[in-house]
Amino acid sequence: MRLIENAILNNCKVLPGDVLKVDHFLNHQIDVNLIYEGAKDFYSAFADKGVTKILTVESSGIGIACLSAVHFGVPVLYAKKQFGSNSDDKLYSVPCHSYTKGIDYNMSVSSKYLTPEDKILIIDDFLAGGNALRSLIELCKVAGAEVVGCGVVIEKKYQGGGDAVREMGYDVISLAKISAMSTENGIEFCD
Amino acid sequence: MRLIENAILNNCKVLPGDVLKVDHFLNHQIDVNLIYEGAKDFYSAFADKGVTKILTVESSGIGIACLSAVHFGVPVLYAKKQFGSNSDDKLYSVPCHSYTKGIDYNMSVSSKYLTPEDKILIIDDFLAGGNALRSLIELCKVAGAEVVGCGVVIEKKYQGGGDAVREMGYDVISLAKISAMSTENGIEFCD
Repeated sequence: MRLIENAILNNCKVLPGDVLKVDHFLNHQIDVNLIYEGAKDFYSAFADKGVTKILTVESSGIGIACLSAVHFGVPVLYAKKQFGSNSDDKLYSVPCHSYTKGIDYNMSVSSKYLTPEDKILIIDDFLAGGNALRSLIELCKVAGAEVVGCGVVIEKKYQGGGDAVREMGYDVISLAKISAMSTENGIEFCD
Repeated sequence: MRLIENAILNNCKVLPGDVLKVDHFLNHQIDVNLIYEGAKDFYSAFADKGVTKILTVESSGIGIACLSAVHFGVPVLYAKKQFGSNSDDKLYSVPCHSYTKGIDYNMSVSSKYLTPEDKILIIDDFLAGGNALRSLIELCKVAGAEVVGCGVVIEKKYQGGGDAVREMGYDVISLAKISAMSTENGIEFCD
């Protein structure tokens, strides 16, 4: 997806600590036209999989998941890191480690909205070590829902998380796949 | 907007503590088709205002803001409750009190993405006491951006927050306006 790669090349900064700053189009300001257009690639890849719902995790996955879901015409379910005290539902919860924030947390969904009848497309903004993606897959397992595919906007392929998930047998699509990245040499994409 | 009122009547629960549970279509699972359709009312109301950007606050506003932004063709900016340690930007921050969660927090945006050139449409899921909306307006003031309108999915009109913001001179549109609500008598809408 040349569109997303161009957006990264034109405006993104590589920060120390292997951090790619994409807050101008992905995880603070959202370039809605760009992501809506880019998400058509998710639809092309998974249109025939009978997707019933898109699953993501708050916060930065939500916008991308919704813009993807318009193409599929299905609801979005976002896993929460914290449920309000007004929740009386049975929850499914799995642990997750955030690489960027250096914290452990639980991601949870209400059991009402993730069921064995669901065919789930998982969508997220970033795929690096793959922790969030594996936790979302685990949530589906716990609920008995089927994961029919995974779509991420940016994959840092050199961190291996995407390939690990592919080796588990899941189909993972990335709109931009980074092969190498450094403050000195900038960003390189996979062919 | 009959669509949203029907979604509320068909599936929502009123919980003790004046809480309306809308997690089946608005703030956990998102009924993307419904919200995308409903958001056309925001476009009808504000299409001629020269909106350059939609501003909301994480997490539950993001999906609605993105689905609205598709109609306007503009980016979304979401205020964050916490910025990662990798942020080196100048931030605008304002305090906010969350009625539902009973906590105080700061909402912040990068100064790069909210400027005196912006004509801002503020979008959020809920409007009750109006704390979040007033803080988002305050963020725009601090940045010198103009607020050209506000759109919320559900307004609890009897709590007065919406009318207080209207009295400040802002145009506030709600897709469903609740006039009264209780566990005993259910939900009533304004005419």
